[in-house]
Amino acid sequence: MEGGSASVIEIRIPAREARVVELQAGSVLEIVDPEGRQAGDFAAYLRDDPDEYFSPSHTLSGNARLVAGVGDELWSNRRRPLMRIRRDDVGTHDMLIGCCDPERYRVLGEPGHPSCFEAIEAALVEHGSTWRLRGELCWNVFMNTEIDEQGRIAILAPKHGPGSSIELEVLEDLVVALSACPQDLTPCNAFNPTPLAMRVSSP
Amino acid sequence: MEGGSASVIEIRIPAREARVVELQAGSVLEIVDPEGRQAGDFAAYLRDDPDEYFSPSHTLSGNARLVAGVGDELWSNRRRPLMRIRRDDVGTHDMLIGCCDPERYRVLGEPGHPSCFEAIEAALVEHGSTWRLRGELCWNVFMNTEIDEQGRIAILAPKHGPGSSIELEVLEDLVVALSACPQDLTPCNAFNPTPLAMRVSSP
Repeated sequence: MEGGSASVIEIRIPAREARVVELQAGSVLEIVDPEGRQAGDFAAYLRDDPDEYFSPSHTLSGNARLVAGVGDELWSNRRRPLMRIRRDDVGTHDMLIGCCDPERYRVLGEPGHPSCFEAIEAALVEHGSTWRLRGELCWNVFMNTEIDEQGRIAILAPKHGPGSSIELEVLEDLVVALSACPQDLTPCNAFNPTPLAMRVSSP
Repeated sequence: MEGGSASVIEIRIPAREARVVELQAGSVLEIVDPEGRQAGDFAAYLRDDPDEYFSPSHTLSGNARLVAGVGDELWSNRRRPLMRIRRDDVGTHDMLIGCCDPERYRVLGEPGHPSCFEAIEAALVEHGSTWRLRGELCWNVFMNTEIDEQGRIAILAPKHGPGSSIELEVLEDLVVALSACPQDLTPCNAFNPTPLAMRVSSP
């Protein structure tokens, strides 16, 4: 490109695992589902102030929409926009439900099953981060949640195909975690957990 | 009553303030709106383990319903039921939106406006609690949120009348905070913040 060159790195997230990446304001994060029908849990915090973090609850309030779409922002617990959605192939993402964790699989009768919570915790430790995830702080990217007229919440199998992605403008210097969800007891990942990837374009 | 006597205490929450109370498992908490059309922010944690707290996100997942109703439970971040709704005059409660805070009023153009966040923080300090609220951990009791077919979230004026209440069975030993929301810039409290009360019946 004239006037400069963008660098692009790709971080592959094996099925049932998670990865952490540092992102500079001005870069773009593309979350890619290479094989299709896979969901991931996303969490983020300010690189220079871990007490400020991405909050689904404040994001629902900020966008006044259940499902964040193109033009919507991901807000922090201090009501600061951290990222902005600039393209989205999928259109189904869940901002309501806590990320899967050991207790969730215990309730489902599978104690010891891998979970997004543990995968993200392991990735944070691997990255050297001292920030600790809380289950209420995840955005369930690509997850196909349906709300019926009575307000009941159902988790359906995803419909998106291989290579689908969502692109997020990075508005602050962030540390971001993303898991490839290991859930195979509900339709969340079409009963077949597969990898995800993060593509980071820096200006 | 034959075989024993129940003790009932009532804690009045002045408009724009909050109060904290300790509740024993087996007791019943009734949240009362004496004048009607008032919402409150509710938060709770385990008396003996403040790292386990009421989580709207885990409650949405546990009940699989946007609006908790009779028979539904309030879940902790460790997916333990903390309370169960046993009666409800109102039927509109919001479990999506973070509690109002200084940043919310700054966005609304009223910096320095009282907030549920600050009222609950002050009540926790007054109570001698070292637990600190996070805005994503509130249940907006009596708040009339409407979701339209496009998933847009709107805050409407409450419709419930004076003396309306909701009754919660207490399943664990808890510390509970409740504010009488000071919001007068949106229809949340029909533009007229008024008091709430907590009635605790112990066996």
